[in-house]
Amino acid sequence: MLDSRLLADLRAIVGAEAVLTGAQVRECATDVQGHVPAAPALVRAHGTAEVASVLRLCHARGQAVVPQGGRTNLVEGTSTTGEELILSLERMNRIEYVDAPGRTMRVEAGVILQRAQEEAERHEMMFPLDLGARGSCTIGGNISTNAGGVRVLRFGMMRSLVLGLEAVLADGTVLDSLNRMLKNNAGYDLKQLFIGSEGTLGVVTRADLRLFPRPRSVATAFVACRDFAALVALLGHLDARLSGQLAAFEALWPEFYEVTTSARTSNSAVLTREHGMYGLVETLGSDPEADQSRLEQALADALERGLILDAVVAKSESERRAIWAPREDVWQAQEQYGLTFNFDVSLAISDMAPYLESLRQQAMRTFPEGRVFAFGHIADGNLHVIVAPGMARGVGAAHDAAREKAESLVYEPLREIDGSIAAEHGIGLERRAYLGYSRTPEEIAAMRALKAALDPKRILNPGKVID
Amino acid sequence: MLDSRLLADLRAIVGAEAVLTGAQVRECATDVQGHVPAAPALVRAHGTAEVASVLRLCHARGQAVVPQGGRTNLVEGTSTTGEELILSLERMNRIEYVDAPGRTMRVEAGVILQRAQEEAERHEMMFPLDLGARGSCTIGGNISTNAGGVRVLRFGMMRSLVLGLEAVLADGTVLDSLNRMLKNNAGYDLKQLFIGSEGTLGVVTRADLRLFPRPRSVATAFVACRDFAALVALLGHLDARLSGQLAAFEALWPEFYEVTTSARTSNSAVLTREHGMYGLVETLGSDPEADQSRLEQALADALERGLILDAVVAKSESERRAIWAPREDVWQAQEQYGLTFNFDVSLAISDMAPYLESLRQQAMRTFPEGRVFAFGHIADGNLHVIVAPGMARGVGAAHDAAREKAESLVYEPLREIDGSIAAEHGIGLERRAYLGYSRTPEEIAAMRALKAALDPKRILNPGKVID
Repeated sequence: MLDSRLLADLRAIVGAEAVLTGAQVRECATDVQGHVPAAPALVRAHGTAEVASVLRLCHARGQAVVPQGGRTNLVEGTSTTGEELILSLERMNRIEYVDAPGRTMRVEAGVILQRAQEEAERHEMMFPLDLGARGSCTIGGNISTNAGGVRVLRFGMMRSLVLGLEAVLADGTVLDSLNRMLKNNAGYDLKQLFIGSEGTLGVVTRADLRLFPRPRSVATAFVACRDFAALVALLGHLDARLSGQLAAFEALWPEFYEVTTSARTSNSAVLTREHGMYGLVETLGSDPEADQSRLEQALADALERGLILDAVVAKSESERRAIWAPREDVWQAQEQYGLTFNFDVSLAISDMAPYLESLRQQAMRTFPEGRVFAFGHIADGNLHVIVAPGMARGVGAAHDAAREKAESLVYEPLREIDGSIAAEHGIGLERRAYLGYSRTPEEIAAMRALKAALDPKRILNPGKVID
Repeated sequence: MLDSRLLADLRAIVGAEAVLTGAQVRECATDVQGHVPAAPALVRAHGTAEVASVLRLCHARGQAVVPQGGRTNLVEGTSTTGEELILSLERMNRIEYVDAPGRTMRVEAGVILQRAQEEAERHEMMFPLDLGARGSCTIGGNISTNAGGVRVLRFGMMRSLVLGLEAVLADGTVLDSLNRMLKNNAGYDLKQLFIGSEGTLGVVTRADLRLFPRPRSVATAFVACRDFAALVALLGHLDARLSGQLAAFEALWPEFYEVTTSARTSNSAVLTREHGMYGLVETLGSDPEADQSRLEQALADALERGLILDAVVAKSESERRAIWAPREDVWQAQEQYGLTFNFDVSLAISDMAPYLESLRQQAMRTFPEGRVFAFGHIADGNLHVIVAPGMARGVGAAHDAAREKAESLVYEPLREIDGSIAAEHGIGLERRAYLGYSRTPEEIAAMRALKAALDPKRILNPGKVID
């Protein structure tokens, strides 16, 4: 419970209608995975000054605060206890301006990613970050988690796309590190502290984003290969042939493709489901006709060389959507197979095939009724793995035991191959116990030193990332 | 003076021959601008363990340490006082391996940039960071200053090219944040602390660098335009036409082109010296013939549209070198005009022409015998400005007064247009007094908090960046 004086003081800052309590909080702040918030209150801030006042107050009272954006986090990064206050930035959704000649846009942290993409397009520009949750995730959340997605290969992660930002520190200090310049080495690059630190070092309130000229051509293909090695060879082939234009290269293992194109979905299988491996390729360029034929020619050569067995190239936006649909329909495994655990690991591309093979074998022993689905951004070294132990969803001892077993299956082998337990989703609460698998004790001590320097009272998103 | 017990202890760690004193230090550690070190001793570490032992010892004794690489810093970032010890990493010059399929290489911090580039090429890969000092600057220095250079437009600054690193903290703790994965969001991205912080938060000892496939084609052109606006229009034109392939776009104002192609140099003027503005364009691609003709066609169209007045495209590597030579011969202004002050500022491309025009006018009033030379990476918003007040070189009151006037002319106008006093060279000692022009008091306070958290005894490169 929060004390009533705190609630009154919060209402004085943001207005009574912007402070929710009780059932209202559970209605408005349940996350995409269905975690119901335990927090007794939620404050909707409207502007940086309000965020600063709220934090100043909470800092003085030692009140823990959990910042929230679009609640699409997959690792309990915005989960709350009954002692915590939710600080929602959803009302800070103003796009301040797009500067097309300067190739930047300035937004508030609560702006939905897709709105930012569309506003850039209206100015003939592109904001290249793109991921399945685009319709609900926010720029602030993308920054706090250093989001990745399907175009990292060409444009980098969110860290590469943020030129500057404004953040409010735990004590309410407003840190104005807004910056529209590509190059600024005037002292420490403080914005890096807030990118990927999951709201534990400050609350991001505004950002300057980097824009690119809107591509005039998109060419999209779906391919089938004999096996993973052939798909990797195709990546090398296309990278050399299309170098600057290749923007997405997604791998789909057959089990994943089957479940996301099954009769129970609304997706169609654009290539037959008999192959050993599938890939989704997309280029962005400046010349629609030439770029489409360049991709077709590169794929024809790949067919001739035996790198691919079949391919289809989208002839329209609706065909393009049909190709992407099975890749993005990532909740189908859960829909069709009950309880699932989702993982997001990084490893060298040369380790992927043996890693997955051994994971499948061990999973079959641990979960005889289970299934393993895999897909991901292999050019980035990033695999998404879904383990379905073959149980109904639910909470309880069996669920927890299965989770622990699945985590052990997926994470343990990463230690030996220098992999990461968190490629793009972050640590949150869910993976905190495994942070030591990917980071040394000295690194974790350095993270604690940063946390102590910036949030000595530990009021910002407590317990996330590090304890 | 350092006490003799410290010197004896240092000799015990690194061996007697690796500890230099007196005149030897002045011989080995004078920087590219001619700053003679005041430090009484220099230690050459051989390996991370030695760096850690040296720092552990210095931390215990409260001994200040100034890390040095290739001593090509332009802002007194490695200058020393008589109380400081130089820690040189020049002997840590091992390239541990190149992993071409994994697109990474692991190097020690003292590896010379050009050696890293060449080793990558031997493996058919490219390490894309490139700058004039390539033959003597080190990877450690490139990391510590977040180096930029001529390919930032396409590949980003050093920050984008470092996948992981190892650093030794002030107390001798070895922080192993080596990482070969493109994506790793397992907790705070600690390496960011050491990139661009100029050796004040830790000593970088090893790094994992990102490699790219070696381009099969390089196409280079030199163009003349009526004025700056035309050159900016050319950038937009080429960016749309060549998008993924454009790798360098350098601007040379006529005064700079004149001085670097004058009869006193060994460079030739590949285009006549009558034009209002010059540009150097380079593409990297995968198809030599097609890429060369694509650049030629794009320039032919630019000529037709009136964006350029003249152009020459290199037909051989020696022609390519001839085009680059005037751009890279940046010390000519000093050779020919005596005392010069070099600046490295960032500003919006739309502010560049009025900024330079006003700077020239004011400089003529302040230094009636003076000259202003400008060149730079305009696509990155980065200008290099050289102010020659029309005086002989020397040290003294007149020198200091001229420097202060030049700094004021260059830096003052940046405050109003949100520019940066340090695009890619850093702050060092030289620009510390002006840090407040580009950073807020809250940002500087946050920098101090980081310094206090990581180097509480302030032994690492004291006084650089922040006081």
